[in-house]
Amino acid sequence: MNRKLRMGMIGGGTGSFIGDVHRKASSIDGMIELVCGAFSSTAEKSIQSGKDLFLAENRCYGSYEEMILKEKELPKEERMDFVAIVTPNHMHFPPAKMALENGFHVVCDKPMTLTLEEAIELEAIIEKSGKLFALTHNYPANPMVKQAKALVDHGDLGTIRKVQVQYLQGWLSTDLETTGQKQAAWRVDPSKSGIGGALGDIGTHAENLVEYITGLKITEIAADLGRFGKGRVLDDDGNLLLRLENGAKGTMSISQIALGEENNLAIKVYGTKGSIEWHQENPNELVTRWLDEPLKIYTPNGNKLYPSAQISRIPAGHPEGYLEAFATVYKNFATHLIAKLKGETIDQPDYPTAKDGLRGMKFIYAAVESDKNNSIWTKI
Amino acid sequence: MNRKLRMGMIGGGTGSFIGDVHRKASSIDGMIELVCGAFSSTAEKSIQSGKDLFLAENRCYGSYEEMILKEKELPKEERMDFVAIVTPNHMHFPPAKMALENGFHVVCDKPMTLTLEEAIELEAIIEKSGKLFALTHNYPANPMVKQAKALVDHGDLGTIRKVQVQYLQGWLSTDLETTGQKQAAWRVDPSKSGIGGALGDIGTHAENLVEYITGLKITEIAADLGRFGKGRVLDDDGNLLLRLENGAKGTMSISQIALGEENNLAIKVYGTKGSIEWHQENPNELVTRWLDEPLKIYTPNGNKLYPSAQISRIPAGHPEGYLEAFATVYKNFATHLIAKLKGETIDQPDYPTAKDGLRGMKFIYAAVESDKNNSIWTKI
Amino acid sequence: MNRKLRMGMIGGGTGSFIGDVHRKASSIDGMIELVCGAFSSTAEKSIQSGKDLFLAENRCYGSYEEMILKEKELPKEERMDFVAIVTPNHMHFPPAKMALENGFHVVCDKPMTLTLEEAIELEAIIEKSGKLFALTHNYPANPMVKQAKALVDHGDLGTIRKVQVQYLQGWLSTDLETTGQKQAAWRVDPSKSGIGGALGDIGTHAENLVEYITGLKITEIAADLGRFGKGRVLDDDGNLLLRLENGAKGTMSISQIALGEENNLAIKVYGTKGSIEWHQENPNELVTRWLDEPLKIYTPNGNKLYPSAQISRIPAGHPEGYLEAFATVYKNFATHLIAKLKGETIDQPDYPTAKDGLRGMKFIYAAVESDKNNSIWTKI
Amino acid sequence: MNRKLRMGMIGGGTGSFIGDVHRKASSIDGMIELVCGAFSSTAEKSIQSGKDLFLAENRCYGSYEEMILKEKELPKEERMDFVAIVTPNHMHFPPAKMALENGFHVVCDKPMTLTLEEAIELEAIIEKSGKLFALTHNYPANPMVKQAKALVDHGDLGTIRKVQVQYLQGWLSTDLETTGQKQAAWRVDPSKSGIGGALGDIGTHAENLVEYITGLKITEIAADLGRFGKGRVLDDDGNLLLRLENGAKGTMSISQIALGEENNLAIKVYGTKGSIEWHQENPNELVTRWLDEPLKIYTPNGNKLYPSAQISRIPAGHPEGYLEAFATVYKNFATHLIAKLKGETIDQPDYPTAKDGLRGMKFIYAAVESDKNNSIWTKI
Repeated sequence: MNRKLRMGMIGGGTGSFIGDVHRKASSIDGMIELVCGAFSSTAEKSIQSGKDLFLAENRCYGSYEEMILKEKELPKEERMDFVAIVTPNHMHFPPAKMALENGFHVVCDKPMTLTLEEAIELEAIIEKSGKLFALTHNYPANPMVKQAKALVDHGDLGTIRKVQVQYLQGWLSTDLETTGQKQAAWRVDPSKSGIGGALGDIGTHAENLVEYITGLKITEIAADLGRFGKGRVLDDDGNLLLRLENGAKGTMSISQIALGEENNLAIKVYGTKGSIEWHQENPNELVTRWLDEPLKIYTPNGNKLYPSAQISRIPAGHPEGYLEAFATVYKNFATHLIAKLKGETIDQPDYPTAKDGLRGMKFIYAAVESDKNNSIWTKI
Repeated sequence: MNRKLRMGMIGGGTGSFIGDVHRKASSIDGMIELVCGAFSSTAEKSIQSGKDLFLAENRCYGSYEEMILKEKELPKEERMDFVAIVTPNHMHFPPAKMALENGFHVVCDKPMTLTLEEAIELEAIIEKSGKLFALTHNYPANPMVKQAKALVDHGDLGTIRKVQVQYLQGWLSTDLETTGQKQAAWRVDPSKSGIGGALGDIGTHAENLVEYITGLKITEIAADLGRFGKGRVLDDDGNLLLRLENGAKGTMSISQIALGEENNLAIKVYGTKGSIEWHQENPNELVTRWLDEPLKIYTPNGNKLYPSAQISRIPAGHPEGYLEAFATVYKNFATHLIAKLKGETIDQPDYPTAKDGLRGMKFIYAAVESDKNNSIWTKI
Repeated sequence: MNRKLRMGMIGGGTGSFIGDVHRKASSIDGMIELVCGAFSSTAEKSIQSGKDLFLAENRCYGSYEEMILKEKELPKEERMDFVAIVTPNHMHFPPAKMALENGFHVVCDKPMTLTLEEAIELEAIIEKSGKLFALTHNYPANPMVKQAKALVDHGDLGTIRKVQVQYLQGWLSTDLETTGQKQAAWRVDPSKSGIGGALGDIGTHAENLVEYITGLKITEIAADLGRFGKGRVLDDDGNLLLRLENGAKGTMSISQIALGEENNLAIKVYGTKGSIEWHQENPNELVTRWLDEPLKIYTPNGNKLYPSAQISRIPAGHPEGYLEAFATVYKNFATHLIAKLKGETIDQPDYPTAKDGLRGMKFIYAAVESDKNNSIWTKI
Repeated sequence: MNRKLRMGMIGGGTGSFIGDVHRKASSIDGMIELVCGAFSSTAEKSIQSGKDLFLAENRCYGSYEEMILKEKELPKEERMDFVAIVTPNHMHFPPAKMALENGFHVVCDKPMTLTLEEAIELEAIIEKSGKLFALTHNYPANPMVKQAKALVDHGDLGTIRKVQVQYLQGWLSTDLETTGQKQAAWRVDPSKSGIGGALGDIGTHAENLVEYITGLKITEIAADLGRFGKGRVLDDDGNLLLRLENGAKGTMSISQIALGEENNLAIKVYGTKGSIEWHQENPNELVTRWLDEPLKIYTPNGNKLYPSAQISRIPAGHPEGYLEAFATVYKNFATHLIAKLKGETIDQPDYPTAKDGLRGMKFIYAAVESDKNNSIWTKI
């Protein structure tokens, strides 16, 4: 199989934020090429988007249904291998289901689905299909997050006692959705976002990061959600207490009305032997603290990294960013898919799957339920 | 009254941490001199401590009772003006009460008392006595905290929506109290600390800082306390949700088992027009964020400070620290006391009083109650 | 011209650092595809490298000469549009010359050539050829460097008085070249690097950044070069005084033996009205200082950027890194080339050219001369 | 000798910057009391200053001559032990000489004298007098500078190869001296400052810090001085190359026209085994880099400090600042003086002396000479 993987995109028309991210991220490592897309809700717009991307007109479709069906009929050596779903939340499940049931692998943006029911159903569909499914929780793909996880896994931190996680943005501080801003409009609309606002958009990232690094499940949460924007029915802010399966405790603070914050995802994990601290906005440092040693800062391709963290593409001191981590999700998915297509059996590379997606949906539902019940502890 | 104020110290024998802090802080501005002390539980030890401080033997007393009674009999031009109480919590109320009732002003370390009942009683005693009472919540005395408060007070941040406060230490990560370490021993002992462990020691600082900067009361909290050290009955960790009187929400994370953290008190306040962020360990920066402006960092004696923040003793760029802020509490108290002794009437300078102390005790009690009730929302 | 540009690569076989960087950077924006390469010194190795890159065997050449000649004979709709030269310094000029003279545009790594004579000749060849030539000084392509330049250009900093630039690495602290490390081996070898060691490798980046941001030429330098590694004949360290054409003064410190430094390129520029500070390792902040304002920090896609700095691909707070800036050089070159191929006339997008390359070579020569003359001031 | 040391101050009238610093710094540790002063040029002003300091009128003198003579006649148990000289540079030598020759110990601000000749003479006077002399280079007294020195002294950094030091201020960016600002006025006046402007005021601190930490002498320098302020005859900016006695090289950048900089003294030292970096504005961190280890940050009272660095007065995480370091100079001087007065022989505590003062003056003279000779290398 000496060729690049062929990707079809669902959503992500010209001007889209996350569609463009998926395109750039999937192209960095030279393993994937975009061959077709149902970028927009009309064929015309889709073709226009495709043109900007140097795609042939006949591979630009007016709907995901059309794309899946037509691609399926293309000769094997031409048709797409997998779809990348980059639409708003309510349009994750239908195309994912259809793609899987028609023999295509899937990369899907998060949160996995609109509802918990869909998530449960999708997990079953994936299993039945035998196809690969990747969920683009990109943050765990940062080298320094890998190092944090490796420190936990090797027992270097001892027993985890305390976790602090925050994901703070300020872009919905004003009532941006009333200005025609599309990104804002769908995110505050329950029919497109689901029952969680900030919870789904960024809370799931925070939840996923905690469980990824610690290897521990969050078992219950107590949530106090805010709806600060005028007329908002979905949360734009959340303050949560966390309890983890091993008895560790913690806090989660998420917000899209934390004025002036850009994309401040950060986590601290405290153990009985060591602690870690990582900030997404400064991703190339992993701060660690120790009982008897000075504070130590690990860096990508720097000294004394565990093998799983040695994934940087460039030498130490050459900063990596958001796109590189996102690209690693695609790279690991592509590595897996290529092996599968070759009929090889390999250990699954480290990328998020439907399991992560289901955890995320359960987290959203538990948080909303706790909030409705004046923040009582609620099981995830 | 062309003389320094005369201070008598209760507690703070040789080797004490906080007693030494009070002595250094009270001496920086040249307005106060230490003239006597009941430093330890025996006259012998007290005299030894006094010797190291170049005090006359006859001004080193074996008990606070003795000191108060003997000093009261000294000629007016010789006897102490006020006492500084730097003992563990259970020894705050008795000497404070006796000093006030015998005509001495009081500076007292926090938390104000062992119990809420004592705090209420002490407030009444102070009022009745007509004497001054300062509680050494030192953190609000940092210039950059003053600037943060001024930004709020002038409406620059708009309406406050969200608060995040943390006070993280790691020094009780191990079971230090079993090693004979005195500081640790009394802090984990309810008979000396009261019903709050980390809550009283550092939580009250966090609570005080939130209310000081925002000018808003925390009306209710939901608390999940941890007791991670072996055999500890008092909290050594706490995760709290906050609701403020204006509808703002927030989190508080406190810990003395956050391994590797030194003295990480930090606060973020988000409003509808601007936001602030301050870190005690890097106290000479106030980070601010704005709707339409780049991030701005204020510095002591730097550009564009409000007058109330222009309290630095040294030029911009010459870092100030913990002792300087502590000294400002003493300086403002001393300024007030000098005016009072001169018979002048002045606006009370900005230092914490029994009101702050009572809030702190109520906070501890509400947190403990919430925790007992599986973190239900509890009014302060 | 609805197609991607076609790139042929010279150098950059499997395991190469900078070749891989060029491949990734050129692919991010979906405007360029790699179609052929002379990756190594033998056809066999070249084919192996090409395989990893999913290239057809017949487009993997054993030498750049072969590639240029064979590609030239391919049908227009198939053959490469430009070459990317990613070989060691001594192999920049010959392929660049040949490519240009055979009708291909060129992207070339820095420093431009092995010798100053070659640089002068190359500039003439480029002009005569009418082809585009881009030199991959990637650092000016960072959004925050663009903002710095814009602040200068708009006069916001007033008159520039002082510049401080450093480019510090530590990877040659040990005698790495004796261990078989290829990157180290050619860099300390004058026949491959030219007369400058650290000067050529990183000093030219520092020089370029100063002139780019300030818009001022460095007119003379006083250089004290170090050769700390055992047996090294080329500089591995340099300390320089700078004088700029407007009377501004400054320092430059470069090193590859600054143990522990990873890739610490940083610059400060001080004017009569404002100042800027930028660090490559933390590229998403531009620190600025002002006469009467607090320190302000600009961020990519953040508030109040000049249009020329609004080039980020992702929203504020999503960190960009080394590859993204590198990609911008390719993007701007590609935009230019596409316009040219379409016969359109556009303003040249902002990417470094042979002018920058020539300045760099003159800088190296002046520094070496000054050093030979015990650091006397030497004109560039 | 169970009493505080008695200090008389020369200069430092109300409103003075450095006089106030000396008073606060000398009082923090409770070992020194201010008993008299010749604060201003008239008795009247001096008395007014003394009043603010709660001094008796008869101990406030109209001139240093009067103070020295009158204090000498006071009974031993009352008269001052030493003088603190906090006047502009031209008024360092005369009172220092007179004090020493009349039996008083001396603490003196830097630079030590107005001219190199005075410095040489003063050193002889001190030696002859048998009195103690401390020069208040305060920066080496920071705990993290002590740790840096200890790392060098213990060989942890290996052989020093490169040094980068900067001391950047911006307060003379405008022509402040024309506005009646006293601090600015004398500093730009050669009759009061000597032949160095920024060189004397801050360059000597930079030079002293390099030699203190590395234990190496700067043997020669190449200096390019700037005089950017209108009409200034003294340097307000300087860029220097350094050569150290062991073959190490480096740069020094000093400025008082680096607009927006507050008090940015920073140093990096690179060895063959490790490196250190320290910033005065963030003094409670010592950044260290290592061949095979991650970056490590030491903190005051934190883990793994050498004994000589364990001098913090407060627990880890409680920031120390400028005054605390300054106080340490006084504390060490006082410890020495008390021992001497008691007739005890002790190792000299670590505080700067006339040797440092003489190095500083030689540095100023070499820099000015180099600059006059178009930056040729000049021996210190």
